[in-house]
Amino acid sequence: MIKKIRGGITAPAGFLAGATSCGIKNPQAARDDLSLIVSETPCSAAATFTTNVVKAAPVRVSREHLKAGKIRAIVLNSGNANACTGEDGLKTARRMATAAAARTGLKANQVLICSTGRIGVPLPIARIEQGLKKIPLGRTHSLKCARSIMTSDTFPKEIACLVETPKGSFRIGGIAKGAGMIDPNMATMLCAVTTDAAIPQAALRKALRASVENSFNRITIDGDMSTNDTVILLANGASGVTPPAEDFQKALDGVTQALARQIVLDGEGVSKFVEIEVVGARSAKDARRAAEAVANSTLVKCAWAGGDPNWGRIMGALGYSGAALREDKTAIFYNDLPIVRNGIAASTPWTKLKAIAARKEFRIKIELALGRFSHTVWTTDLTEEYVRLNLGE
Amino acid sequence: MIKKIRGGITAPAGFLAGATSCGIKNPQAARDDLSLIVSETPCSAAATFTTNVVKAAPVRVSREHLKAGKIRAIVLNSGNANACTGEDGLKTARRMATAAAARTGLKANQVLICSTGRIGVPLPIARIEQGLKKIPLGRTHSLKCARSIMTSDTFPKEIACLVETPKGSFRIGGIAKGAGMIDPNMATMLCAVTTDAAIPQAALRKALRASVENSFNRITIDGDMSTNDTVILLANGASGVTPPAEDFQKALDGVTQALARQIVLDGEGVSKFVEIEVVGARSAKDARRAAEAVANSTLVKCAWAGGDPNWGRIMGALGYSGAALREDKTAIFYNDLPIVRNGIAASTPWTKLKAIAARKEFRIKIELALGRFSHTVWTTDLTEEYVRLNLGE
Repeated sequence: MIKKIRGGITAPAGFLAGATSCGIKNPQAARDDLSLIVSETPCSAAATFTTNVVKAAPVRVSREHLKAGKIRAIVLNSGNANACTGEDGLKTARRMATAAAARTGLKANQVLICSTGRIGVPLPIARIEQGLKKIPLGRTHSLKCARSIMTSDTFPKEIACLVETPKGSFRIGGIAKGAGMIDPNMATMLCAVTTDAAIPQAALRKALRASVENSFNRITIDGDMSTNDTVILLANGASGVTPPAEDFQKALDGVTQALARQIVLDGEGVSKFVEIEVVGARSAKDARRAAEAVANSTLVKCAWAGGDPNWGRIMGALGYSGAALREDKTAIFYNDLPIVRNGIAASTPWTKLKAIAARKEFRIKIELALGRFSHTVWTTDLTEEYVRLNLGE
Repeated sequence: MIKKIRGGITAPAGFLAGATSCGIKNPQAARDDLSLIVSETPCSAAATFTTNVVKAAPVRVSREHLKAGKIRAIVLNSGNANACTGEDGLKTARRMATAAAARTGLKANQVLICSTGRIGVPLPIARIEQGLKKIPLGRTHSLKCARSIMTSDTFPKEIACLVETPKGSFRIGGIAKGAGMIDPNMATMLCAVTTDAAIPQAALRKALRASVENSFNRITIDGDMSTNDTVILLANGASGVTPPAEDFQKALDGVTQALARQIVLDGEGVSKFVEIEVVGARSAKDARRAAEAVANSTLVKCAWAGGDPNWGRIMGALGYSGAALREDKTAIFYNDLPIVRNGIAASTPWTKLKAIAARKEFRIKIELALGRFSHTVWTTDLTEEYVRLNLGE
């Protein structure tokens, strides 16, 4: 049984966390922009990183550390991504790990690093080093941490659950940040998940990979993919419970999907949450291509912003997606109402379809009727507000 | 020598054209929405069509006719795309060719058909048949034709030139329509080009293919690709001149590039024209992928709309483009000023870069320094106005 509980990343036993302001995000406003998560005991660790070829320095250093040994801490900053910063960026990322290790009595390679914010600006590492010296650690600061990693996010993203199994109970907690540049393969998003379940490293990696596939890798807001995306999962075993694999997977999926959903709902200028499910594709790749082409079509997304149950633009996007398609076999549904059958307009009254497209949340199902593969993505509309928020300087 | 002249598609000898209102676009406003272009003598013909798997009925019928024999006419309507209209759509497309043939004393399969406008709505074929009966044909109606094919275009697109060669002179003229859904591989755009040069069919096809590659296939506004895109080239030989292949190609490229440029400049809600040139790519495919990823990134385009000479988002887009990339080798220029060198910020004063990004038109050059392949695309910014125009109903 899975029960939602309070406490976020410190809900699981043996985890401490804290956040502080070190003056990166906005020197004047003193907003928290630095946080630290630590396990009191050694952990199994797993992480997935951006597939963008341009990888930020913290991503590169974290990958090294993950290979080197048992991770026990995560240090995160917002306001500066330490991306496209060259050799100097790598040095400052290493210094950030060293400073976090000094604060917690660990070795530098036991620390993973996450940075998010502006690209191409040198990270003010001295401020981070100062901040880490004074950062408070405790069992009640999860929400403060979730707030400290926000950039253009409008609300902190946090969740935790208690899982009762025949073998005993354990906890999982997580925080995340999202906003613009959200795409499958992990866009500008950071996520830290903790658990006091006892899971061997190999099993933990497998579980995280599967979970990311069904959560963060199915969300897309603008099709852009960032240089810093990172999802980290630490399991310290403090509950003494090694749950059945399927129980752990189910609970972990619940946590990552809840956070992914919060990220979509908080996309920049977003007014609608849309689930797109493609079924009957000839291959898994086709299913994904078709779903993502629709989800990333600016024309389709603009139509949704206007409450238009558009299907011509959806057919157009399917047609250029690269997925195998037979126009005369294709069907499209808004929620459960057919809008297209056999490639042409279905007879559902337009007013009923409009009522669905006017909602804050709806589902689109696309039947290709060519095979047995399916794929689901979660996306949003594209609003004038999105453009306004991304006009740059 | 190439000289710009007046007359559009009727500048070349032996072509007649006309347009009328048949009440598809707006029954009340009586805006022209139907046009016809005819050659007095048999032509060589070439055409390229959308690569979208969902092909509109007029595209399918035109491809049949092109195979069947010598084309002599093009009939075009706006206001209705006759796309996603099933078997009935094919029938109405054939009736449209038949009606145009009846008006001009030709066989139906000597007529090519173009439709643009709403998808998924039955084409009011009876109105088109009535309209074709009364359509005036003459040597001075090119601009009227260019206007009649406009949808959300804000100005008609027309051009003509006189080409003087050692073997004699000939003319090329063209009209086009563009606006939303503009992408490489020919998005919602129609283009008809006429010439009185004498060019054998095989050579004409080769010339058009090459010309489309360097014009319409390098423009992108929103990454969406439509179901109806068509470029047609008719050569009736009325000048009696068979020009050297390179002279004809150069003149044809001038016509198609001028029309492609007009289409980009008239993109929905567009405020800037941006040329993106990728050089030093490892393969031709990589060069194209890199250029298109940048051109289609909503975040990059929003930054331009705000006059922000952004490079972090450009690096991000390059990183997820799929093109081979070495961050530390990559350079980016706004016009000729370096903004990135070796993957990190160059030392050009920011004010100078901002001044370029504030212009109505600028160039971005991206050096990958990994090979010898290059690709150029023409694109635009993404404005709040674009979203407003595409909100749907």
